[in-house]
Amino acid sequence: MKLFSFWRSLATYRVRIALNLKGITPEVFEVNLPQGKQREADFAKINPMMAIPALIEDDGTVLFESLAILEYLDETHPNPPLLPKAPKARARVRAIAQIIAADTHPLIVPRVREFLAHEYKIDEPGVLKWGNHWHNVSLKALETVLAGSRETGRYCQGDQVTIADICLAGQAAGASYFKADLAPFPTVKRIVDEVMKIDAFARAHPLKQPGAPATV
Amino acid sequence: MKLFSFWRSLATYRVRIALNLKGITPEVFEVNLPQGKQREADFAKINPMMAIPALIEDDGTVLFESLAILEYLDETHPNPPLLPKAPKARARVRAIAQIIAADTHPLIVPRVREFLAHEYKIDEPGVLKWGNHWHNVSLKALETVLAGSRETGRYCQGDQVTIADICLAGQAAGASYFKADLAPFPTVKRIVDEVMKIDAFARAHPLKQPGAPATV
Repeated sequence: MKLFSFWRSLATYRVRIALNLKGITPEVFEVNLPQGKQREADFAKINPMMAIPALIEDDGTVLFESLAILEYLDETHPNPPLLPKAPKARARVRAIAQIIAADTHPLIVPRVREFLAHEYKIDEPGVLKWGNHWHNVSLKALETVLAGSRETGRYCQGDQVTIADICLAGQAAGASYFKADLAPFPTVKRIVDEVMKIDAFARAHPLKQPGAPATV
Repeated sequence: MKLFSFWRSLATYRVRIALNLKGITPEVFEVNLPQGKQREADFAKINPMMAIPALIEDDGTVLFESLAILEYLDETHPNPPLLPKAPKARARVRAIAQIIAADTHPLIVPRVREFLAHEYKIDEPGVLKWGNHWHNVSLKALETVLAGSRETGRYCQGDQVTIADICLAGQAAGASYFKADLAPFPTVKRIVDEVMKIDAFARAHPLKQPGAPATV
């Protein structure tokens, strides 16, 4: 497998965690986002959305969109499972994952921040406020969902690591990029602290990747 | 089942199509988005993200996030299936769905347009340009993905209706809201025209819902 990655990409972080949990070691290719490599012809041929992650299977099949990749990895490498078995529990896990991966993260990716800056002349503090705002909106919702449910356990869904936890780890890293404090969201913070004890999460962290700075 | 819906909501449109395809008729409750009913306490208790759709199962279980609901409906009501069987085909279908439901639609929902207007003082033509831009970005990517693949058939994935087609129908409706022309994207347009011949799609259309205007 080939993984197209960049240290800072939160969507790629999700896939790195899943690959680690499944015991898969891909060949990693850097797509330097600040240099705009994702928009160059070679990569646009791989993923026409010009975004990472992208994963190329050994037979050449190209996969993209992080949640689609997570489900694929879970279907093709079932152990350990990243989703519970019961449909209602699966729906809850996917909904938590999508609050992050659909309702929040797409708002703060490079192409959106660049469009705000170039098209609407929003300055750097204005763009930081944008990222901070959307993180806080979803952290508040996630705290309500997680703190208010008996389904929540050691992790988002009972005591099994799922794609919800994978997305939550990414949300926590994104919060640090945009100076959103986790302290007002104690259940979120507790679960993030818990998953970061797991080696598969810890070594997938953005700041542990080649090219990453010491802090953001 | 209870479905919380509003005529204009594209995410709810997806769930309406799936319910129609599965032969399920829910009790429908309007959540008036322009009136901000999604932010009132009664609804925020149902979905802390304060967004529709939300679906309440007969046992009281609350489901939200449209793609999580689609997968749930497919797992609990398997006929007709909304995903193919092979993992790679499933990953392709989910990726197409997520280009729309994760990379595009979350950028143009009411809360984001309202934040652009209130926080950054972007005027109505500026917000329309925003919606138009993101639709065109993803329509271009979708056309490349669909036109360039032998997997594409009568619908996005062969000749079986999937969640990719459901999301594509929503994308087409969204394009009309933001004056994005489908003509430069002939494969997208062909598939949209094809699915709109299906009754389950046609009667789920935003403009067919109670309270909808004659045109947008």
